[in-house]
Order: sequence, then structure tokens, then C-alpha cells
Amino acid sequence: MSELRRDPITGRWTIIETLEPSGPEVFEVETDTPAGGTCPFCPGNEAMTPPEVYALRPAVGAVDGPGWRLRVVPNKFPALDASGMLTRRGLGVFDQSSGVGVHEIIVETPDHQRQLADLSQEELRQVITSYQLRTQALRADARLKYGLVFKNSGLVAGATLTHSYSQLIALPIVPKRVEEELRGAERYFEARERCVFCDIASQELLEDERVVCENRAFLAVCPYVSRFPFEMWVLPKEHLPEFALATQETVTDFARIVREVLGRLREALKNAPYNFVIHTAPFQLRDPETYHWHLEIIPALTRVAGFEWGTGFYINPTPPEYAAQILRGVALPV
Amino acid sequence: MSELRRDPITGRWTIIETLEPSGPEVFEVETDTPAGGTCPFCPGNEAMTPPEVYALRPAVGAVDGPGWRLRVVPNKFPALDASGMLTRRGLGVFDQSSGVGVHEIIVETPDHQRQLADLSQEELRQVITSYQLRTQALRADARLKYGLVFKNSGLVAGATLTHSYSQLIALPIVPKRVEEELRGAERYFEARERCVFCDIASQELLEDERVVCENRAFLAVCPYVSRFPFEMWVLPKEHLPEFALATQETVTDFARIVREVLGRLREALKNAPYNFVIHTAPFQLRDPETYHWHLEIIPALTRVAGFEWGTGFYINPTPPEYAAQILRGVALPV
Repeated sequence: MSELRRDPITGRWTIIETLEPSGPEVFEVETDTPAGGTCPFCPGNEAMTPPEVYALRPAVGAVDGPGWRLRVVPNKFPALDASGMLTRRGLGVFDQSSGVGVHEIIVETPDHQRQLADLSQEELRQVITSYQLRTQALRADARLKYGLVFKNSGLVAGATLTHSYSQLIALPIVPKRVEEELRGAERYFEARERCVFCDIASQELLEDERVVCENRAFLAVCPYVSRFPFEMWVLPKEHLPEFALATQETVTDFARIVREVLGRLREALKNAPYNFVIHTAPFQLRDPETYHWHLEIIPALTRVAGFEWGTGFYINPTPPEYAAQILRGVALPV
Repeated sequence: MSELRRDPITGRWTIIETLEPSGPEVFEVETDTPAGGTCPFCPGNEAMTPPEVYALRPAVGAVDGPGWRLRVVPNKFPALDASGMLTRRGLGVFDQSSGVGVHEIIVETPDHQRQLADLSQEELRQVITSYQLRTQALRADARLKYGLVFKNSGLVAGATLTHSYSQLIALPIVPKRVEEELRGAERYFEARERCVFCDIASQELLEDERVVCENRAFLAVCPYVSRFPFEMWVLPKEHLPEFALATQETVTDFARIVREVLGRLREALKNAPYNFVIHTAPFQLRDPETYHWHLEIIPALTRVAGFEWGTGFYINPTPPEYAAQILRGVALPV
């Protein structure tokens, strides 16, 4: 059980777990080996997760039984709770909202050993299609305003299990960082009547200093204002606000470039842990001309310390031009 | 050598090291033991740092020689460069600024073994006074707009040496997170003609659910919207925009409560690493009625992962009411 609290100063929301609070003992040990025992994401252990909400079963197979190639289940330990009314109230200077939302896990493969970068292009396409299908299913819930797909790969990057999985969280508010991007893109559009992401994509392709790779529909760049070493963005070349509405053909190209980018990252950084997040328009889009969905990938190489969270100002020791050069130089297996 | 780059979408600035870029090899090994050898912050090794800009020497002693009780030196590896003109230019859709700024290290004690929480109240008062003096010295530089005092304690929290030190960075722009606080406080003032921080302090003292401790001039609370487990803010009870202008008497009370708070944190969390940051008004303050300086302390217990940086939305497993209860319950040595 959780609740949402809004900071009266900056407008920042935080999800706070109120029912089962974590005490000091939870944080005492930091380990790189997950708790031993049975993996809840392996075939045969389907009963260890909540009942599936979606699965790909090429052959005949029972729901919540083995035989699947991809499986989506509600998170057993959700950051937000799917049941209940959305209520908001003031507490003096503070604002609070019930922790309504949905938190799902996409188990990307039945194979405990394979990571996302190991999947075939077709398997990766199916993972991405499942992100789209689940996002579309959740937008029907009028309480929810935003669907965020993200992945923590590796324990240092926040993964809690080694079996490869992604996450989808649907929120009752539009998150602050997305709101900032939306507003910034709106301001840019007001001044120039062009999409800022389209302009960035054109400029990056023209300068060709930070481009890692490209295909028909996408380019991957180390962005000019990279916050972190080896940060990469995958941008659709064509203007489209919503990830979930990308066509099958576009998704195929997206799977191709994501596979290449994860492969380059793995070679260049020797299996470094990473996070990725898909930024897309809110469920109720204000203006389809201004926003442009994209994927942001951040290798977990540095730690965010006092300076960064005190200022919202990042110090990046690796210029994106240099990172792009290294990532482009990687020899990939064909 | 570094430069500042501004994100055209959100307005976020990043400092990017361009002269000595870090390649993949720099991030490959993560170690909890600092590089062996001689500590540059220990007495006798003064020649290993740039010449001091401030020191406390109770007895007679030469500049940049031993005998000091506290020493402030420019960072040997600064995030920003003190020399050069402040220049800004556009690069297509992007904005760039020269990396002008000052980055200083406050060596809090000559003793390699003692941490900030081990200092006497008088020693801690001197450390805090040095923060004030250096901030005041830097505001004379017209290129600089903001002075940020912060500390990374423990290697996991971003400290690069075990010898206890704090940092001061003076920036040519007002950082985004401070700007957000300033704007939020201004909006609150416009609506109510009261300072939001004063209102928070009153409400916290009245409710007494999240207060950890207090004295004449300060209260320490686990804020209602804590982003991280065991986050604490130390708020002056009296309205004052600028930390550097706090009186000697106030600084004495500040040293007292910071010492208590660090002691409670250490006992409750068994020497957990932490970050702190002092949020204060910019050098050129717009409206002295709206902003209120304070200290934010964040134990480094959790990792910021995909969800947090994708949304600017935090998930906190430890409610501040529970954290405050644990911190209040700590038995402190007298």
C-alpha cells in the first residue's frame, strides 16, 4: 500500500510505501548476488507470480503454465496499487493522493540466462509489441494519465532479479520530467512552429559527430547534452508523439536498432549495467505536433551524488562525441 | 577543461569534460578501497594540493605547511575552471557556455580517521563558518551566480578519498533544481504572502510526527515528501534567504543540530554513506521574502534507477513518519 505526496515547493511527486515500511535493516547489506532459490520468472514457476495479464504461447499451453515465449504479470511488490479510487486531499501545506496505478513486469524470455541483448530481432520485436499492447490496454483506465516503459538491467542498475525483464508503470499523474519535456517542446514549437526532437534529429544527422548508427526509421545518438557517460537516445526520424501507436513496420526497425545499440553498448562497456526508459506522450495528449517519443538508454557507470541531486545539474566526464566514436568503432558479430 | 551545455527541451545544463574525456576503462572497476598511497589531505602533504585559499592555524605556521586545523584548497580536478571569460553561444538548436566556475575542497580536519560526525561542536562550527567565508569571497566574482556547498560521505555516496572533506562549487548559472525551488516558493508567496518553508516548519512542529530534533534556531525533520529513505532537512526557524548571512549565534545552533543529526543517522543506519547539500538563495536574490535556506541530508541507501530518472518521480519505501520515529529513538552518547 502506498500513497503519492506532492512537494509544495517544486511540485515533485513521490510514491511512499506506507503499509510495509522498510527499516534500516533492509538497506544494510548490499549484495551482487540475488537471494538464492527458485527464479519466479522461469517456466514451471508461474505460480510464484500473480496471474498473467498477457503471454505469447506459440504452441497450445494453459494460461499460467509453461510453454510461453514472453509473459506479462502484475508486479508482486507493486510501487502502486491497481485497486481503489483516485483520491486527492490537502494536509495543510501538503498534497496527497492515493497510490493508484498499475505496475507490470514483462518477462522477456523464458531462458534464465539470456539478456535482452541476446534476443533475436524477431524476439525483441515481440517484446516491444508487448510494451505497446499493455500500454494501450491501460490507457482505457480513466484514473491513469501516463504509461512508462523502462528497464533496469543488472543489479547495480536496480534490477532485483537476474532473469531479464522490463517494467511498465501507469501513473495517475504525468511525471515531472515528462511534463518538463512536454513544456519545453511546446515552447520551442511556439517560437519556431517545428518539433524540437525533429530538429535535433536533423542536426545530428547533418553534423554526424554524435550519431552511433541509423536505419530507415531511427537514429541512435549520444545526445549533445548527455548527462551520463555513454548515454544514448534512439529517436524516430518521423514525427510521432506516441510510442504505442508506432506501426508494425516501425516497430521492426526499432527492434533492429535497439538490438544493435545494446550490442554496441555491451561490447564497448563490457556488460555494464544500464537503464532505459521510453518517453512518450501522456494518454491525453495536448498537441500532437509538439511531442516526439524516444528511447533513452543510460549505462549505470557513475553514481548520482550530492552535487547532482542538489542542483539537477550533471557532471559528465565523457563527451558524447567521444562516446559515439567508441560505440561506432565496436566490431559487432554479424 | 570543461564546457556547459544546455538542453533545448528542458533547459537542463550539464558540465561536460572535453579535454580529458573518460573512456570505458575508467568505469570498469568499481572498488570500495581508494587508490593506495599517500593522502593529499593529511598534514605534511600540503604540496599535493593546489595552494590553499583559506586555513585555520591556531599556532604560528607557514601557509601550505602543517599545523592547520581546517584547510580550503581549489580542487585539483575541478568540474569547472576558474580562469577565462564567460562566453555563451548557440550551435543550431543547442546552447553552450564556457565551463567557468570555482570548485573548492574544504578539508574538515587534519585527522585522517575522523569523520564529520566525530568533530566537536566547536570544530563543526568552524567548518560551517568556512563554508560561509568562502561563499562570501566567491560572490565578488561577477561571472558567478550561485554557490553550492555539499558533501559526499563514503565511497558509495561519491567521495573519492576517505579523509573527510566537503565541497563548494560556484556556478555561472542558477542550477535548475534551485530555480524550481525558487519559483515554487515565489508562487506560494504570491498566493498566500507567506514563505512556504516557514509554513512547513510551523506545520511540522505542530504535527510533531516527522520532527527528529530541534533547538532554539533550527528543526530537523524527515520531510513529508521524502524522496529517499531517512532523508532529513534541517530548517532555520527564522526566515533567512541566505546561508552565508546567518549570524555567529545561528551558526552555533546550526553546528549543534547538524552534529546531533549526523550522530543519529550514524547510529540508526550503521555508518551509512550520505550526501548533504545546502540550498541557499542565488548571489543576486530576486525577493528576500520568498526563499529560506536549509540543509538537505540524503543517506545513500537506494540507487536511482530507470523509473526515477525517467520520470523525476521517486519511490520511497520508508515513510518519513517511520524514519523520524527511528531517528528520534536513537540513544546518543552525551
